[in-house]
Amino acid sequence: MKWVRYATGTDGGSRYCIVEGDMVQEVSGTPFAEYAVTGTRRRLADLRLLTPVMPPTFYANGVNYRAHVRSTSAAVGKDYHEPPLTDIIGYRAVSALVAHGDAIVIPRESPGKIQYEGELVVVIGKTAKHLSEADALSCVLGYSVGNDVSERSWQRVDRTLWRAKNTDTFKPMGPWIETDVDFDAMETIVRVNDKEVARFKTNDMICGVSATISMITRYITLRPGDVIWMGTNDPTLDMVAGDVCEIEISGVGVLRNPVVAEA
Amino acid sequence: MKWVRYATGTDGGSRYCIVEGDMVQEVSGTPFAEYAVTGTRRRLADLRLLTPVMPPTFYANGVNYRAHVRSTSAAVGKDYHEPPLTDIIGYRAVSALVAHGDAIVIPRESPGKIQYEGELVVVIGKTAKHLSEADALSCVLGYSVGNDVSERSWQRVDRTLWRAKNTDTFKPMGPWIETDVDFDAMETIVRVNDKEVARFKTNDMICGVSATISMITRYITLRPGDVIWMGTNDPTLDMVAGDVCEIEISGVGVLRNPVVAEA
Repeated sequence: MKWVRYATGTDGGSRYCIVEGDMVQEVSGTPFAEYAVTGTRRRLADLRLLTPVMPPTFYANGVNYRAHVRSTSAAVGKDYHEPPLTDIIGYRAVSALVAHGDAIVIPRESPGKIQYEGELVVVIGKTAKHLSEADALSCVLGYSVGNDVSERSWQRVDRTLWRAKNTDTFKPMGPWIETDVDFDAMETIVRVNDKEVARFKTNDMICGVSATISMITRYITLRPGDVIWMGTNDPTLDMVAGDVCEIEISGVGVLRNPVVAEA
Repeated sequence: MKWVRYATGTDGGSRYCIVEGDMVQEVSGTPFAEYAVTGTRRRLADLRLLTPVMPPTFYANGVNYRAHVRSTSAAVGKDYHEPPLTDIIGYRAVSALVAHGDAIVIPRESPGKIQYEGELVVVIGKTAKHLSEADALSCVLGYSVGNDVSERSWQRVDRTLWRAKNTDTFKPMGPWIETDVDFDAMETIVRVNDKEVARFKTNDMICGVSATISMITRYITLRPGDVIWMGTNDPTLDMVAGDVCEIEISGVGVLRNPVVAEA
Protein backbone atom coordinates (compact mmCIF):
# COMPACT_ATOMS: atom_id res chain seq x y z
CA MET A 1 0.00 0.00 0.00
CA LYS A 2 1.21 3.54 -0.84
CA TRP A 3 0.34 6.57 1.32
CA VAL A 4 0.61 10.10 -0.09
CA ARG A 5 -0.15 13.41 1.60
CA TYR A 6 -1.25 16.44 -0.39
CA ALA A 7 -1.97 20.13 0.23
CA THR A 8 -5.73 20.79 0.26
CA GLY A 9 -5.38 24.53 -0.36
CA THR A 10 -3.54 27.64 0.66
CA ASP A 11 -4.44 27.38 4.36
CA GLY A 12 -1.74 24.86 5.23
CA GLY A 13 -4.24 21.99 5.37
CA SER A 14 -3.29 18.49 4.24
CA ARG A 15 -4.92 15.11 3.71
CA TYR A 16 -3.70 11.53 3.38
CA CYS A 17 -4.66 9.32 0.44
CA ILE A 18 -4.07 5.73 -0.62
CA VAL A 19 -2.56 5.48 -4.12
CA GLU A 20 -4.35 3.21 -6.62
CA GLY A 21 -2.50 3.42 -9.94
CA ASP A 22 -3.02 6.93 -11.38
CA MET A 23 -5.78 7.68 -8.87
CA VAL A 24 -5.92 8.14 -5.09
CA GLN A 25 -8.57 7.31 -2.49
CA GLU A 26 -8.90 10.05 0.14
CA VAL A 27 -9.07 9.10 3.82
CA SER A 28 -10.06 10.95 6.96
CA GLY A 29 -7.49 10.55 9.74
CA THR A 30 -3.90 9.43 9.18
CA PRO A 31 -2.01 6.15 8.69
CA PHE A 32 -0.42 6.78 12.12
CA ALA A 33 -3.75 6.47 13.99
CA GLU A 34 -7.34 5.74 12.96
CA TYR A 35 -8.40 6.39 9.38
CA ALA A 36 -11.42 5.75 7.14
CA VAL A 37 -11.78 5.90 3.36
CA THR A 38 -14.01 8.88 2.50
CA GLY A 39 -15.13 7.68 -0.95
CA THR A 40 -13.55 10.67 -2.73
CA ARG A 41 -11.20 9.71 -5.56
CA ARG A 42 -8.76 12.11 -7.23
CA ARG A 43 -6.15 12.00 -9.97
CA LEU A 44 -2.68 11.62 -8.44
CA ALA A 45 -1.23 13.95 -11.12
CA ASP A 46 -3.54 16.79 -9.98
CA LEU A 47 -2.29 16.81 -6.38
CA ARG A 48 0.41 19.06 -4.92
CA LEU A 49 2.28 16.47 -2.88
CA LEU A 50 3.73 17.27 0.54
CA THR A 51 6.43 15.33 2.38
CA PRO A 52 4.58 12.13 3.36
CA VAL A 53 5.10 13.07 7.03
CA MET A 54 6.59 15.89 9.12
CA PRO A 55 8.50 13.84 11.69
CA PRO A 56 8.56 14.69 15.41
CA THR A 57 12.22 13.55 15.39
CA PHE A 58 14.39 13.08 12.27
CA TYR A 59 17.13 10.43 12.64
CA ALA A 60 19.91 9.80 10.13
CA ASN A 61 22.49 7.05 9.75
CA GLY A 62 25.48 9.10 8.69
CA VAL A 63 28.14 6.57 7.72
CA ASN A 64 26.33 3.37 6.85
CA TYR A 65 27.93 2.02 3.61
CA ARG A 66 31.54 0.87 3.42
CA ALA A 67 32.51 2.49 0.10
CA HIS A 68 31.14 5.84 1.27
CA VAL A 69 32.98 5.63 4.60
CA ARG A 70 36.19 4.77 2.70
CA SER A 71 35.98 7.79 0.36
CA THR A 72 34.89 10.16 3.15
CA SER A 73 37.85 9.03 5.28
CA ALA A 74 40.25 9.42 2.33
CA ALA A 75 38.95 12.95 1.64
CA VAL A 76 40.14 14.09 5.08
CA GLY A 77 43.36 12.04 5.02
CA LYS A 78 42.25 9.29 7.42
CA ASP A 79 42.63 5.52 7.10
CA TYR A 80 39.46 3.51 6.59
CA HIS A 81 38.05 1.91 9.69
CA GLU A 82 34.69 0.29 10.29
CA PRO A 83 32.73 2.99 12.14
CA PRO A 84 31.63 2.06 15.66
CA LEU A 85 27.84 1.81 16.00
CA THR A 86 27.93 4.90 18.22
CA ASP A 87 29.20 6.91 15.23
CA ILE A 88 26.33 5.95 12.96
CA ILE A 89 23.20 7.55 14.44
CA GLY A 90 22.65 11.27 14.16
CA TYR A 91 19.95 13.86 13.53
CA ARG A 92 18.77 16.12 10.73
CA ALA A 93 16.52 19.20 10.89
CA VAL A 94 12.82 18.98 10.08
CA SER A 95 13.11 22.57 8.79
CA ALA A 96 15.10 21.33 5.77
CA LEU A 97 12.42 18.91 4.46
CA VAL A 98 10.77 19.52 1.08
CA ALA A 99 8.47 17.33 -1.01
CA HIS A 100 8.71 15.45 -4.32
CA GLY A 101 8.81 18.08 -7.07
CA ASP A 102 9.97 20.94 -4.84
CA ALA A 103 13.19 22.80 -5.72
CA ILE A 104 16.55 22.17 -4.07
CA VAL A 105 17.86 25.73 -3.64
CA ILE A 106 21.63 26.36 -3.76
CA PRO A 107 22.22 29.17 -1.23
CA ARG A 108 23.85 32.40 -2.38
CA GLU A 109 26.38 31.97 0.44
CA SER A 110 27.49 28.48 -0.63
CA PRO A 111 31.17 28.61 -1.65
CA GLY A 112 31.37 24.96 -2.63
CA LYS A 113 29.80 21.95 -4.21
CA ILE A 114 26.28 20.61 -3.67
CA GLN A 115 25.94 16.83 -3.95
CA TYR A 116 23.03 14.36 -3.86
CA GLU A 117 22.91 11.37 -1.49
CA GLY A 118 20.16 8.81 -2.24
CA GLU A 119 18.80 7.18 0.93
CA LEU A 120 16.15 4.72 2.08
CA VAL A 121 13.79 6.34 4.63
CA VAL A 122 12.18 4.26 7.39
CA VAL A 123 8.85 5.71 8.61
CA ILE A 124 7.88 4.70 12.15
CA GLY A 125 4.19 3.84 12.69
CA LYS A 126 4.00 2.90 16.39
CA THR A 127 5.55 4.00 19.67
CA ALA A 128 8.49 1.68 20.43
CA LYS A 129 11.12 1.21 23.16
CA HIS A 130 13.50 -1.69 23.87
CA LEU A 131 12.76 -3.64 20.67
CA SER A 132 14.94 -6.65 19.85
CA GLU A 133 16.28 -6.96 16.31
CA ALA A 134 13.79 -9.77 15.72
CA ASP A 135 10.86 -7.51 16.69
CA ALA A 136 12.25 -4.25 15.30
CA LEU A 137 10.17 -4.04 12.12
CA SER A 138 6.93 -4.29 14.14
CA CYS A 139 7.04 -0.50 14.72
CA VAL A 140 7.55 0.40 11.03
CA LEU A 141 4.69 1.81 8.92
CA GLY A 142 6.65 1.80 5.65
CA TYR A 143 9.47 3.24 3.56
CA SER A 144 10.12 6.35 1.51
CA VAL A 145 12.99 7.90 -0.47
CA GLY A 146 15.27 10.72 0.74
CA ASN A 147 17.91 12.93 -0.86
CA ASP A 148 20.42 13.94 1.85
CA VAL A 149 21.69 16.98 -0.10
CA SER A 150 25.10 18.07 1.23
CA GLU A 151 27.25 21.18 0.76
CA ARG A 152 30.77 19.69 0.86
CA SER A 153 32.75 22.84 1.74
CA TRP A 154 30.56 23.41 4.81
CA GLN A 155 30.74 19.70 5.63
CA ARG A 156 34.51 20.06 6.15
CA VAL A 157 34.11 22.85 8.74
CA ASP A 158 30.69 22.40 10.42
CA ARG A 159 31.29 20.16 13.45
CA THR A 160 27.57 19.33 13.65
CA LEU A 161 26.89 19.61 9.88
CA TRP A 162 24.22 22.19 10.72
CA ARG A 163 24.59 24.12 7.43
CA ALA A 164 26.16 21.37 5.32
CA LYS A 165 23.18 19.03 5.72
CA ASN A 166 20.33 21.17 7.12
CA THR A 167 20.13 24.34 5.06
CA ASP A 168 16.58 25.06 3.80
CA THR A 169 15.43 22.63 1.02
CA PHE A 170 18.39 20.23 1.56
CA LYS A 171 16.16 17.30 2.58
CA PRO A 172 13.75 16.22 -0.21
CA MET A 173 11.62 13.24 0.94
CA GLY A 174 8.87 11.35 -0.90
CA PRO A 175 6.92 10.87 -3.04
CA TRP A 176 5.01 8.55 -0.68
CA ILE A 177 5.24 5.84 1.99
CA GLU A 178 5.29 2.26 0.60
CA THR A 179 4.26 -0.27 3.23
CA ASP A 180 5.27 -3.47 1.37
CA VAL A 181 8.93 -3.89 0.42
CA ASP A 182 11.54 -6.57 -0.27
CA PHE A 183 14.91 -5.43 1.14
CA ASP A 184 16.88 -7.99 -0.85
CA ALA A 185 15.43 -6.83 -4.18
CA MET A 186 16.00 -3.11 -3.57
CA GLU A 187 18.47 -1.08 -5.57
CA THR A 188 19.08 2.65 -5.11
CA ILE A 189 19.53 4.38 -8.49
CA VAL A 190 20.39 8.07 -8.89
CA ARG A 191 19.87 9.99 -12.13
CA VAL A 192 20.90 13.57 -12.85
CA ASN A 193 19.19 14.97 -15.96
CA ASP A 194 17.95 11.44 -16.76
CA LYS A 195 21.54 10.05 -16.83
CA GLU A 196 22.29 7.29 -14.30
CA VAL A 197 25.12 8.43 -12.00
CA ALA A 198 24.91 5.94 -9.11
CA ARG A 199 23.48 2.47 -8.42
CA PHE A 200 23.95 0.30 -5.32
CA LYS A 201 22.24 -2.47 -3.36
CA THR A 202 20.09 -0.55 -0.88
CA ASN A 203 20.35 -3.18 1.85
CA ASP A 204 24.17 -3.43 1.76
CA MET A 205 24.35 -1.44 5.00
CA ILE A 206 26.81 -1.57 7.90
CA CYS A 207 23.87 -1.23 10.33
CA GLY A 208 20.62 -2.42 8.73
CA VAL A 209 17.05 -1.31 9.44
CA SER A 210 16.34 -3.84 12.22
CA ALA A 211 19.71 -3.29 13.92
CA THR A 212 19.28 0.50 13.78
CA ILE A 213 15.78 0.44 15.29
CA SER A 214 16.90 -1.97 17.99
CA MET A 215 19.92 0.20 18.85
CA ILE A 216 17.98 3.49 18.96
CA THR A 217 15.23 1.99 21.14
CA ARG A 218 17.73 0.82 23.77
CA TYR A 219 17.93 4.50 24.77
CA ILE A 220 15.21 6.44 22.98
CA THR A 221 11.46 6.01 22.39
CA LEU A 222 10.56 6.06 18.70
CA ARG A 223 7.19 7.69 18.00
CA PRO A 224 4.65 7.56 15.14
CA GLY A 225 5.88 9.71 12.28
CA ASP A 226 9.57 9.64 13.24
CA VAL A 227 11.81 8.92 10.26
CA ILE A 228 15.22 7.26 10.06
CA TRP A 229 17.32 7.97 6.95
CA MET A 230 19.57 5.02 6.34
CA GLY A 231 22.66 6.61 4.72
CA THR A 232 24.07 6.52 1.20
CA ASN A 233 26.76 4.81 -0.84
CA ASP A 234 29.20 6.22 -3.42
CA PRO A 235 29.42 7.82 -5.83
CA THR A 236 27.89 11.16 -4.75
CA LEU A 237 28.44 13.78 -7.44
CA ASP A 238 27.99 17.52 -7.91
CA MET A 239 24.71 19.14 -8.91
CA VAL A 240 24.37 22.63 -10.39
CA ALA A 241 21.45 25.00 -10.95
CA GLY A 242 19.31 23.72 -13.82
CA ASP A 243 19.87 20.03 -13.01
CA VAL A 244 17.05 17.65 -12.11
CA CYS A 245 17.92 14.93 -9.60
CA GLU A 246 15.97 11.66 -9.37
CA ILE A 247 16.46 9.07 -6.64
CA GLU A 248 14.75 5.73 -7.32
CA ILE A 249 14.56 2.90 -4.82
CA SER A 250 13.14 -0.13 -6.60
CA GLY A 251 9.86 -1.22 -5.05
CA VAL A 252 9.51 2.07 -3.12
CA GLY A 253 9.31 4.97 -5.59
CA VAL A 254 11.05 7.78 -7.47
CA LEU A 255 11.82 11.13 -5.79
CA ARG A 256 12.45 13.90 -8.36
CA ASN A 257 13.58 17.46 -7.58
CA PRO A 258 14.91 20.33 -9.71
CA VAL A 259 17.99 22.27 -8.57
CA VAL A 260 17.86 26.08 -8.65
CA ALA A 261 20.07 28.95 -7.48
CA GLU A 262 18.82 31.16 -4.62
CA ALA A 263 17.22 34.27 -6.12
CA MET B 1 3.48 37.67 30.24
CA LYS B 2 3.91 33.98 31.12
CA TRP B 3 2.50 31.18 28.90
CA VAL B 4 2.00 27.67 30.32
CA ARG B 5 0.64 24.57 28.59
CA TYR B 6 -1.13 21.84 30.55
CA ALA B 7 -2.57 18.38 29.91
CA THR B 8 -6.38 18.49 29.76
CA GLY B 9 -6.83 14.76 30.38
CA THR B 10 -5.66 11.33 29.39
CA ASP B 11 -6.40 11.78 25.66
CA GLY B 12 -3.18 13.69 24.91
CA GLY B 13 -5.03 17.02 24.70
CA SER B 14 -3.43 20.25 25.88
CA ARG B 15 -4.32 23.88 26.35
CA TYR B 16 -2.40 27.15 26.73
CA CYS B 17 -2.97 29.52 29.65
CA ILE B 18 -1.69 32.91 30.73
CA VAL B 19 -0.26 32.86 34.27
CA GLU B 20 -1.62 35.44 36.73
CA GLY B 21 0.07 34.85 40.10
CA ASP B 22 -1.20 31.54 41.53
CA MET B 23 -3.99 31.37 38.93
CA VAL B 24 -4.11 30.93 35.15
CA GLN B 25 -6.48 32.28 32.47
CA GLU B 26 -7.27 29.67 29.83
CA VAL B 27 -7.14 30.62 26.15
CA SER B 28 -8.40 29.00 22.97
CA GLY B 29 -5.72 28.86 20.27
CA THR B 30 -2.01 29.24 20.94
CA PRO B 31 0.49 32.05 21.49
CA PHE B 32 2.02 31.10 18.10
CA ALA B 33 -1.12 32.07 16.16
CA GLU B 34 -4.51 33.52 17.07
CA TYR B 35 -5.80 33.12 20.63
CA ALA B 36 -8.66 34.36 22.78
CA VAL B 37 -9.15 34.31 26.55
CA THR B 38 -11.98 31.86 27.34
CA GLY B 39 -12.91 33.26 30.74
CA THR B 40 -12.04 30.00 32.56
CA ARG B 41 -9.61 30.48 35.46
CA ARG B 42 -7.77 27.61 37.18
CA ARG B 43 -5.26 27.21 40.02
CA LEU B 44 -1.75 26.86 38.59
CA ALA B 45 -0.89 24.30 41.30
CA ASP B 46 -3.70 21.99 40.09
CA LEU B 47 -2.36 21.71 36.52
CA ARG B 48 -0.16 18.95 35.12
CA LEU B 49 2.26 21.10 33.14
CA LEU B 50 3.61 20.01 29.76
CA THR B 51 6.70 21.35 28.01
CA PRO B 52 5.57 24.85 26.99
CA VAL B 53 6.00 23.82 23.33
CA MET B 54 6.93 20.76 21.26
CA PRO B 55 9.29 22.37 18.75
CA PRO B 56 9.28 21.52 15.04
CA THR B 57 13.09 21.89 15.16
CA PHE B 58 15.23 21.92 18.34
CA TYR B 59 18.46 23.94 18.04
CA ALA B 60 21.25 24.00 20.64
CA ASN B 61 24.33 26.17 21.09
CA GLY B 62 26.81 23.55 22.24
CA VAL B 63 29.90 25.49 23.29
CA ASN B 64 28.76 28.98 24.13
CA TYR B 65 30.50 29.99 27.41
CA ARG B 66 34.28 30.40 27.71
CA ALA B 67 34.81 28.62 31.06
CA HIS B 68 32.81 25.60 29.82
CA VAL B 69 34.77 25.45 26.55
CA ARG B 70 38.02 25.66 28.57
CA SER B 71 37.15 22.75 30.89
CA THR B 72 35.70 20.64 28.07
CA SER B 73 38.89 21.16 26.03
CA ALA B 74 41.09 20.31 29.05
CA ALA B 75 39.10 17.10 29.69
CA VAL B 76 40.13 15.75 26.29
CA GLY B 77 43.70 17.13 26.43
CA LYS B 78 43.20 20.04 24.02
CA ASP B 79 44.30 23.67 24.36
CA TYR B 80 41.59 26.27 24.77
CA HIS B 81 40.59 28.06 21.63
CA GLU B 82 37.64 30.32 20.92
CA PRO B 83 35.23 28.05 19.01
CA PRO B 84 34.44 29.18 15.46
CA LEU B 85 30.79 30.19 15.01
CA THR B 86 30.32 27.15 12.77
CA ASP B 87 31.07 24.92 15.79
CA ILE B 88 28.39 26.45 17.99
CA ILE B 89 25.04 25.53 16.41
CA GLY B 90 23.73 21.97 16.68
CA TYR B 91 20.55 20.01 17.22
CA ARG B 92 18.85 18.05 19.99
CA ALA B 93 16.02 15.47 19.74
CA VAL B 94 12.41 16.46 20.46
CA SER B 95 11.92 12.89 21.74
CA ALA B 96 14.04 13.70 24.83
CA LEU B 97 11.88 16.62 26.07
CA VAL B 98 10.07 16.36 29.41
CA ALA B 99 8.21 18.97 31.44
CA HIS B 100 8.73 20.77 34.74
CA GLY B 101 8.23 18.19 37.50
CA ASP B 102 8.84 15.13 35.29
CA ALA B 103 11.57 12.66 36.26
CA ILE B 104 15.04 12.60 34.70
CA VAL B 105 15.59 8.85 34.30
CA ILE B 106 19.15 7.45 34.52
CA PRO B 107 19.24 4.58 31.98
CA ARG B 108 20.15 1.09 33.18
CA GLU B 109 22.78 0.99 30.41
CA SER B 110 24.55 4.18 31.53
CA PRO B 111 28.08 3.31 32.66
CA GLY B 112 29.00 6.84 33.67
CA LYS B 113 28.03 10.11 35.19
CA ILE B 114 24.89 12.13 34.55
CA GLN B 115 25.32 15.90 34.84
CA TYR B 116 22.98 18.91 34.69
CA GLU B 117 23.53 21.87 32.33
CA GLY B 118 21.35 24.93 33.02
CA GLU B 119 20.44 26.81 29.83
CA LEU B 120 18.39 29.75 28.60
CA VAL B 121 15.83 28.63 25.99
CA VAL B 122 14.73 31.01 23.20
CA VAL B 123 11.21 30.26 21.88
CA ILE B 124 10.56 31.45 18.30
CA GLY B 125 7.15 33.03 17.67
CA LYS B 126 7.24 33.98 13.98
CA THR B 127 8.64 32.58 10.72
CA ALA B 128 12.01 34.24 10.05
CA LYS B 129 14.76 34.16 7.39
CA HIS B 130 17.70 36.53 6.75
CA LEU B 131 17.28 38.58 9.96
CA SER B 132 20.00 41.08 10.84
CA GLU B 133 21.29 41.13 14.44
CA ALA B 134 19.41 44.39 14.95
CA ASP B 135 16.10 42.78 13.91
CA ALA B 136 16.76 39.29 15.32
CA LEU B 137 14.59 39.54 18.44
CA SER B 138 11.52 40.44 16.34
CA CYS B 139 10.87 36.70 15.74
CA VAL B 140 11.08 35.71 19.44
CA LEU B 141 7.95 34.93 21.47
CA GLY B 142 9.77 34.55 24.79
CA TYR B 143 12.17 32.56 26.96
CA SER B 144 12.13 29.39 29.02
CA VAL B 145 14.57 27.28 31.06
CA GLY B 146 16.25 24.07 29.90
CA ASN B 147 18.36 21.36 31.57
CA ASP B 148 20.67 19.86 28.91
CA VAL B 149 21.23 16.62 30.90
CA SER B 150 24.38 14.86 29.65
CA GLU B 151 25.85 11.38 30.14
CA ARG B 152 29.58 12.12 30.17
CA SER B 153 30.91 8.63 29.33
CA TRP B 154 28.72 8.51 26.20
CA GLN B 155 29.69 12.12 25.40
CA ARG B 156 33.31 10.98 24.98
CA VAL B 157 32.42 8.32 22.36
CA ASP B 158 29.20 9.48 20.59
CA ARG B 159 30.34 11.52 17.59
CA THR B 160 26.86 13.09 17.29
CA LEU B 161 26.04 12.99 21.05
CA TRP B 162 22.92 11.00 20.13
CA ARG B 163 22.81 9.02 23.40
CA ALA B 164 24.85 11.41 25.57
CA LYS B 165 22.42 14.30 25.10
CA ASN B 166 19.24 12.79 23.61
CA THR B 167 18.34 9.73 25.68
CA ASP B 168 14.68 9.75 26.83
CA THR B 169 13.97 12.37 29.58
CA PHE B 170 17.38 14.12 29.13
CA LYS B 171 15.84 17.44 28.05
CA PRO B 172 13.62 18.97 30.78
CA MET B 173 12.17 22.32 29.60
CA GLY B 174 9.82 24.74 31.36
CA PRO B 175 7.97 25.63 33.44
CA TRP B 176 6.63 28.29 31.04
CA ILE B 177 7.49 30.88 28.39
CA GLU B 178 8.21 34.37 29.78
CA THR B 179 7.78 37.07 27.14
CA ASP B 180 9.38 39.98 29.03
CA VAL B 181 13.01 39.66 30.10
CA ASP B 182 16.10 41.75 30.87
CA PHE B 183 19.21 39.95 29.54
CA ASP B 184 21.61 42.06 31.60
CA ALA B 185 19.86 41.22 34.89
CA MET B 186 19.68 37.46 34.26
CA GLU B 187 21.60 34.96 36.34
CA THR B 188 21.47 31.19 35.88
CA ILE B 189 21.47 29.40 39.25
CA VAL B 190 21.54 25.62 39.67
CA ARG B 191 20.55 23.86 42.90
CA VAL B 192 20.82 20.14 43.61
CA ASN B 193 18.77 19.12 46.69
CA ASP B 194 18.26 22.84 47.47
CA LYS B 195 22.04 23.48 47.64
CA GLU B 196 23.41 26.01 45.14
CA VAL B 197 26.02 24.33 42.92
CA ALA B 198 26.41 26.80 40.03
CA ARG B 199 25.74 30.48 39.30
CA PHE B 200 26.71 32.49 36.23
CA LYS B 201 25.65 35.57 34.25
CA THR B 202 23.23 34.13 31.69
CA ASN B 203 24.10 36.64 28.98
CA ASP B 204 27.89 36.11 29.18
CA MET B 205 27.74 34.09 25.93
CA ILE B 206 30.25 33.72 23.11
CA CYS B 207 27.38 33.97 20.59
CA GLY B 208 24.40 35.82 22.11
CA VAL B 209 20.71 35.45 21.30
CA SER B 210 20.60 38.07 18.50
CA ALA B 211 23.83 36.85 16.89
CA THR B 212 22.63 33.22 17.01
CA ILE B 213 19.26 33.99 15.39
CA SER B 214 20.91 36.12 12.73
CA MET B 215 23.45 33.37 11.95
CA ILE B 216 20.88 30.55 11.77
CA THR B 217 18.55 32.56 9.52
CA ARG B 218 21.32 33.22 6.97
CA TYR B 219 20.78 29.54 5.98
CA ILE B 220 17.67 28.21 7.68
CA THR B 221 14.08 29.41 8.15
CA LEU B 222 13.09 29.54 11.83
CA ARG B 223 9.44 28.64 12.44
CA PRO B 224 6.89 29.30 15.22
CA GLY B 225 7.59 26.95 18.11
CA ASP B 226 11.23 26.26 17.24
CA VAL B 227 13.50 26.50 20.30
CA ILE B 228 17.17 27.44 20.60
CA TRP B 229 18.99 26.31 23.75
CA MET B 230 21.80 28.77 24.45
CA GLY B 231 24.45 26.57 26.15
CA THR B 232 25.74 26.39 29.69
CA ASN B 233 28.67 27.51 31.82
CA ASP B 234 30.69 25.65 34.46
CA PRO B 235 30.53 24.02 36.88
CA THR B 236 28.37 21.07 35.74
CA LEU B 237 28.30 18.39 38.42
CA ASP B 238 27.07 14.83 38.87
CA MET B 239 23.51 13.90 39.78
CA VAL B 240 22.43 10.56 41.24
CA ALA B 241 19.06 8.85 41.70
CA GLY B 242 17.15 10.53 44.53
CA ASP B 243 18.48 14.02 43.74
CA VAL B 244 16.24 16.92 42.77
CA CYS B 245 17.70 19.42 40.29
CA GLU B 246 16.49 23.02 40.01
CA ILE B 247 17.55 25.45 37.30
CA GLU B 248 16.55 29.06 37.94
CA ILE B 249 17.01 31.88 35.46
CA SER B 250 16.20 35.12 37.20
CA GLY B 251 13.25 36.86 35.58
CA VAL B 252 12.27 33.73 33.63
CA GLY B 253 11.42 30.92 36.09
CA VAL B 254 12.50 27.81 38.00
CA LEU B 255 12.62 24.37 36.33
CA ARG B 256 12.59 21.54 38.90
CA ASN B 257 13.00 17.80 38.13
CA PRO B 258 13.66 14.74 40.30
CA VAL B 259 16.32 12.21 39.23
CA VAL B 260 15.40 8.50 39.33
CA ALA B 261 17.00 5.25 38.18
CA GLU B 262 15.41 3.31 35.30
CA ALA B 263 13.16 0.61 36.71
